[in-house]
Amino acid sequence: MSTNGTNRQVIVTELPTGKLSTSNFEVREGPMPEASDGEVLVRTLWLSLDAANRAWMQGATYTDPVFAGQVMSGFTLGQVVASNSPDVPAGAIVECQNGWQAYGVHAAKAVRPFEPKAPLPRYLSVLGVTGLTAYFGLHDVGRPEAGETVVVSAAGGATGSVVGQLARLRGCRAVGIAGSDDKNRWLVDELGFDAAVNYKDPGFRQQLKAACPDGVDVYFDNTGGPILETVLRRMNLHGRIACCGVVSQYDTSNPAAGPAGIPGLLVTKRIRMEGFIVMDFYDRRAQALDELAGWVNSGELKVAEDVVEGLEHAPAGLVGLLAGENMGKRMVHVADPT
Amino acid sequence: MSTNGTNRQVIVTELPTGKLSTSNFEVREGPMPEASDGEVLVRTLWLSLDAANRAWMQGATYTDPVFAGQVMSGFTLGQVVASNSPDVPAGAIVECQNGWQAYGVHAAKAVRPFEPKAPLPRYLSVLGVTGLTAYFGLHDVGRPEAGETVVVSAAGGATGSVVGQLARLRGCRAVGIAGSDDKNRWLVDELGFDAAVNYKDPGFRQQLKAACPDGVDVYFDNTGGPILETVLRRMNLHGRIACCGVVSQYDTSNPAAGPAGIPGLLVTKRIRMEGFIVMDFYDRRAQALDELAGWVNSGELKVAEDVVEGLEHAPAGLVGLLAGENMGKRMVHVADPT
Repeated sequence: MSTNGTNRQVIVTELPTGKLSTSNFEVREGPMPEASDGEVLVRTLWLSLDAANRAWMQGATYTDPVFAGQVMSGFTLGQVVASNSPDVPAGAIVECQNGWQAYGVHAAKAVRPFEPKAPLPRYLSVLGVTGLTAYFGLHDVGRPEAGETVVVSAAGGATGSVVGQLARLRGCRAVGIAGSDDKNRWLVDELGFDAAVNYKDPGFRQQLKAACPDGVDVYFDNTGGPILETVLRRMNLHGRIACCGVVSQYDTSNPAAGPAGIPGLLVTKRIRMEGFIVMDFYDRRAQALDELAGWVNSGELKVAEDVVEGLEHAPAGLVGLLAGENMGKRMVHVADPT
Repeated sequence: MSTNGTNRQVIVTELPTGKLSTSNFEVREGPMPEASDGEVLVRTLWLSLDAANRAWMQGATYTDPVFAGQVMSGFTLGQVVASNSPDVPAGAIVECQNGWQAYGVHAAKAVRPFEPKAPLPRYLSVLGVTGLTAYFGLHDVGRPEAGETVVVSAAGGATGSVVGQLARLRGCRAVGIAGSDDKNRWLVDELGFDAAVNYKDPGFRQQLKAACPDGVDVYFDNTGGPILETVLRRMNLHGRIACCGVVSQYDTSNPAAGPAGIPGLLVTKRIRMEGFIVMDFYDRRAQALDELAGWVNSGELKVAEDVVEGLEHAPAGLVGLLAGENMGKRMVHVADPT
């Protein structure tokens, strides 16, 4: 396949010192990379935007940090446009870490080809890392039982919007925490949450209490910080907190102190608090995807995707995501497959 | 059995607003209580002093709070001196919550008679709540495997001094954290810890690192606060933190913020942090006590008891315990059985 000889890249010009801004990025033309022996050239089709992208700019997490002067890192779906490997043919649709650029080169073994059976965006939302994170975090870490109350923060986001729906499918009361009344109405009216409360509301604490008349058994925490501190006080004896992310602490170079009540309330309430990374559960990935696909096909699990059009809008898309403007899984549509 | 008609009691005259002081207590003569139908009169023999006593003065925990004007609460071993119940005869040795007084009355079912097979103090140290807390917290919550590194804070205290020894018995590297070099020498030389570091030393962070060359797999946390924050940074992937107590936060009316790095480090390192209360494991109490007694009898588990003589010295004993002056399980010898 012919490529026009130039690559489009979004470069991190400077690491943010406080809140991330679009001025931390610059769109540049770059040389078209070439696939050497055993490598493939991948065209980016869809780019995932994730709060974790911002954490990568703070240094090492569970993945490599991002440095100034580099192409911004990101998880992508792409199509192989040139192959120097017998393992992955040209034309293949693959998952890879192309980052924020139109084309990238990878060792063939660093890309994961798959046969799409659903529209491509699904593989970044419910049938991708997002859905799997919700699935394993809720079921394997939170371990809710029918009749229990599950609370999830960043409930309007990619993972949170799935968590609440899965909790309902497990026979639980699902309560979302999000930062706008519009989002909360959407969670209840469209996605079927039992209740949703706005953490920016001065009455948040009381509203959470009212929304959880039987206390909180499982808290799926995407935020950390003051929201975690508030939910902790409503936890029941032997409650479980699945620690998925800390979005309240990503968009700053000056993270807050930890939540008061830790570890004191963990002791008196015998609470288990456990961090997880979705990759640790990938031995059961296929089974989980089958179950998720079944719920999507039956209409029991609603797909919530928030699409930004064009690679050049990725910076604004991520800045907006960190400000909580997305409803569901935010991703950038970069190109269509041939 | 004749009693002389008066009871000796240590009253909480005023709840502490900052650090606990002996001036928060007063020793008074009180009326000798009488056992009604179904009740027993118990003479206090041994009174357990525990950091948790101070937490009870902060309000509700897992047990009733302590109020000004009341007899100070405390766990005791005693002897029944008068019984109005067929279930517990006079003369029986019992565990009960007599509090800080020479005599107390209880419903017969609220005392637990037992046949001592070892000196009575053992039933407050290794063969009592202390030993059981170390046992279940380490084995069931921390779940160390042979070859792993176990760190315990308040290591010179009642529970900590047992935890490190149990970790060694499980084939682990045992590292203690305590507040004096004397205590740390005792932990290594007498109790067989592999290493012990002083959290008051300016080089604490580096010393902990040196003492744990392979990182920390299990942290048995008795302190919370800055020590927890420091150990958290040395935890290995999939580490476990058994949250037993928060002694750094008990002796104040102004608890500190939680440790930075929570929940962020829990996520990136996939750490499980879990609070527990020993009573939750009492279905396996007999088996645990058998195992503990075996180790005591074989000399593999050293008994560390720190005895304060006389009920009137209980206030100074507790104040000193909160300042970390005890080595091993602190208890008050009040009277001898007949």
